[in-house]
Amino acid sequence: MLVSDVLRRNARRTPDRNALLMVDGSGARTYAELYERATRLANALLGVAAPGDRVAILSENSPEYVEAYYGVPSAGMALTMLNYRLHPKEWVWILNDSGARVLLVARPYLEAIADHLGEIEALEHVIVIGDPAPGFRTYDDLVGAASAAVPEVPVGADDVAWLLYTSGTTGFPKGAQLTHRNLTTAMIQSVLEYDPTPRTRFLNAMPLCHVAGYLTPTHQFYGGSVLMMSGWDPELWMRLVQEHRVTSGGFAPTMMSMLLAHPKIWDYDLDSLEWMGYGASKIPADVLRRTIERFGSVVYAGMGMTELGGNILTLDKEAHIRAANGEEHLLDAVGKPMSLVDVRVVNSAGEDCADGEVGEIVVQGDQVTVGYFGNPEATEQAFAGGWFHTGDLARRDEEGFLYIVDRAKDMIISGGENVYSSEVENAVYEHPGVAEAAVIGLPDPVWGEKVAVVVVRREGHEVSADDVVGQCTSRLASYKRPREVIFVDSLPKTVSGKIRKNDLRERYGTAK
Amino acid sequence: MLVSDVLRRNARRTPDRNALLMVDGSGARTYAELYERATRLANALLGVAAPGDRVAILSENSPEYVEAYYGVPSAGMALTMLNYRLHPKEWVWILNDSGARVLLVARPYLEAIADHLGEIEALEHVIVIGDPAPGFRTYDDLVGAASAAVPEVPVGADDVAWLLYTSGTTGFPKGAQLTHRNLTTAMIQSVLEYDPTPRTRFLNAMPLCHVAGYLTPTHQFYGGSVLMMSGWDPELWMRLVQEHRVTSGGFAPTMMSMLLAHPKIWDYDLDSLEWMGYGASKIPADVLRRTIERFGSVVYAGMGMTELGGNILTLDKEAHIRAANGEEHLLDAVGKPMSLVDVRVVNSAGEDCADGEVGEIVVQGDQVTVGYFGNPEATEQAFAGGWFHTGDLARRDEEGFLYIVDRAKDMIISGGENVYSSEVENAVYEHPGVAEAAVIGLPDPVWGEKVAVVVVRREGHEVSADDVVGQCTSRLASYKRPREVIFVDSLPKTVSGKIRKNDLRERYGTAK
Ligand SMILES: Nc1ncnc2c1ncn2[C@@H]1O[C@H](COP(=O)(O)O)[C@@H](O)[C@H]1O
Repeated sequence: MLVSDVLRRNARRTPDRNALLMVDGSGARTYAELYERATRLANALLGVAAPGDRVAILSENSPEYVEAYYGVPSAGMALTMLNYRLHPKEWVWILNDSGARVLLVARPYLEAIADHLGEIEALEHVIVIGDPAPGFRTYDDLVGAASAAVPEVPVGADDVAWLLYTSGTTGFPKGAQLTHRNLTTAMIQSVLEYDPTPRTRFLNAMPLCHVAGYLTPTHQFYGGSVLMMSGWDPELWMRLVQEHRVTSGGFAPTMMSMLLAHPKIWDYDLDSLEWMGYGASKIPADVLRRTIERFGSVVYAGMGMTELGGNILTLDKEAHIRAANGEEHLLDAVGKPMSLVDVRVVNSAGEDCADGEVGEIVVQGDQVTVGYFGNPEATEQAFAGGWFHTGDLARRDEEGFLYIVDRAKDMIISGGENVYSSEVENAVYEHPGVAEAAVIGLPDPVWGEKVAVVVVRREGHEVSADDVVGQCTSRLASYKRPREVIFVDSLPKTVSGKIRKNDLRERYGTAK
Repeated sequence: MLVSDVLRRNARRTPDRNALLMVDGSGARTYAELYERATRLANALLGVAAPGDRVAILSENSPEYVEAYYGVPSAGMALTMLNYRLHPKEWVWILNDSGARVLLVARPYLEAIADHLGEIEALEHVIVIGDPAPGFRTYDDLVGAASAAVPEVPVGADDVAWLLYTSGTTGFPKGAQLTHRNLTTAMIQSVLEYDPTPRTRFLNAMPLCHVAGYLTPTHQFYGGSVLMMSGWDPELWMRLVQEHRVTSGGFAPTMMSMLLAHPKIWDYDLDSLEWMGYGASKIPADVLRRTIERFGSVVYAGMGMTELGGNILTLDKEAHIRAANGEEHLLDAVGKPMSLVDVRVVNSAGEDCADGEVGEIVVQGDQVTVGYFGNPEATEQAFAGGWFHTGDLARRDEEGFLYIVDRAKDMIISGGENVYSSEVENAVYEHPGVAEAAVIGLPDPVWGEKVAVVVVRREGHEVSADDVVGQCTSRLASYKRPREVIFVDSLPKTVSGKIRKNDLRERYGTAK
């Protein structure tokens, strides 16, 4: 199966059904139209590049992005998504690493990248999405001039469809090659679990340059409609749900927090919602509780990863209801393995951990990346022992629920003891004056590493370093208490809302 | 994904849940047990044969059959299922065609095949399922002595898992090679459509030697239980549904007719049923009506085929409700294409037919057989133009429902006019004295073919040839009326209940 089969089959079965709409009312596409545009894009690209090439895209959410999701892989090329929040130097790095021959760039980003075009070696064609710019071909021209016939290139399920760079919370980003099979497996697995229907109206507010974008084809699988936001705005989101009778939405936990904290959260009619999925990082327990209070039992958690083309673990509605009804421990769970994947928790020898024991999550299945682009060492390391290593530390309970304890790289080893950063963060977060906190390990001549915490104060609150440490004294073993407290105005984050701890470690680790 | 992944994942997730039970209470297997037995079988087979070999099975429904479903493909071998209702000569033919090296044979069938063992060239090992027989190794011995460790043979999704011979309504049977990918795609597609859950209790009454057997792994996909009958008995079926609170059942239309005609149909509590699927051939409209009357909106139709590893079309509950509420034309529909398959209706030039026009159903998708074993000519013919030709003539309506009009080979061309046998049968069936009827074309010196009908009278009814022809006079164009009426006591049928028209054509065609 190919990624574009989702579109092709719906274009045949329900050509006139609405596939896509931007929230400002622009970009409306029926399935027939979306399929036609994606097909034209494929043909246009075959005129300027060849199957096997990479085609990069730098844009916020847009209809053209969705066309590229399907159309680029239909040409046998790999869509390479550039996170629009990165620094131009980072775009250049990724464009060079991927060797992209074509760049599709949204008009607002053209200037920022234009100065650097000389630094990008393989790039031959820069196509502008949106308003024309002198000296550049526009996307509409290119696509409008191309044939709408199915391209006659041999594209197979094992060809790379998307090339997605890891969000880079640690080290250089790596390009995870996701084949058609990887993506369709992740998609079908999520369809099996989340049950979208032809009547589904999915409001997408997550950036399409992130793996969470797979939820768009997932919700189009049965011919549902996708309403597309570009950027997150809690009140707009509520207004749209009310106006369009939205049934489904995807979130990063920060988005969920902002929504629940919004003063108008009870002012809109949000009853049409049947499915709210969140993922990317852990959701604070009280946010989850308030979400269920507000929306009822419509909440799903998904644990996924760039290299896995989508989710592998899900905490379903039932578990959320149990959590809300007193089984508090489930608020910390990330879920159980989904139906098409093998998930294990293993110790450093690669053996299965006993229930309750902390180990690394490793994965096998048709959704697992075929490897990092041009980086066989990283691939080999990630697949040590034949299983894909997620770098997430977790434990399993007797029922089979998994609990993520920490990223392996975020775990601190202080005086030979393991300290899970999330455990310390949980304690710090309980202080009412703490808005955000990130616990990291910093080099220490005596202990190897020492526990440090970077804190953002809540507006209007006074919090001292002693307050923060005192917060931990009654809750944590002494070796887990922060030895250093750093106050900042904001924390560096990835596009999906994860804190970039590597940046923090670099900044405060080398300064010592 | 491999076929055995269904078992392996459930053995890990819910090892103690009941996977299988024979209706007499024997053969109970938890997921852990079933997986262990299947794994031992794989290891045992690797001791006597090699990956790439065929392993045949000749048995009625049994726990060992289900073990073989999973275990034989886990050894990289293809399970070759012999229809136990065939003539020994036919078994010999298939065993020779497939070149099977191992035969698993149920004790009751041993004598019938034993005399012919000398005629089967490649066969090296005959293993007896059930009571021991002098000179033969038993299945239990073989499996009991084997290791329970995962076999270390490289088995891939594109290896052949099942080798299923076509039911042979026309010509010599052909061995359809179904790979792991073919079967898991068919299975997942049916899971998407039929929504089994871990609480599903599927009562299987269809023969496991038929492609409909794929419904057993389908219902085990999420860890449901399968209750296994060996042979069809309507009253036993009702008793079991009541006793075990069965949720799901699969049927051939003849089974459904027998059930509805049973005097005790209203005596049992059958309310636990949530899903009743039927397929293999068309169901008479009045049987369908009475089924919905009795069971409510729980009925699904599936159109499938040996070469497709399962169903490709489904008429869902909603359509059945519409049919029962007056939209009579839907009683004739076989459904719409399912989610992972491409289905077209094409004319002899391979072009799409307009709505309403009759053409052949052709199919593409990951579930379509990789070809006939050792028969490249048949494979090439079936895949003319790159699409798999089903040999079924159908039309599509404006809503996208497909209606099977006839098997291409059953269509009669009389004086240059096309006569669909099913159309004539429908007219004949309306006579209250007709229990069963099969319309066939017989050679005719003037018209090329003439319409003939073979009729089984309903007990206690008088029906003459004139009655039968008269039945058609008011309903059909004169060229469609039977020129010959043949009365018989019973019609020859395949294991899935299809009338073997080829047998009839041979018998009555050459006698002329
Ligand atoms: N629901 C159905 N209605 C009518 N014919 C069917 C149906 N399901 C299967 N068939 C017929 O059965 C054939 C497949 O036979 P088999 O390979 O023995 O399963 C198809 O090609 C159809 O002709």
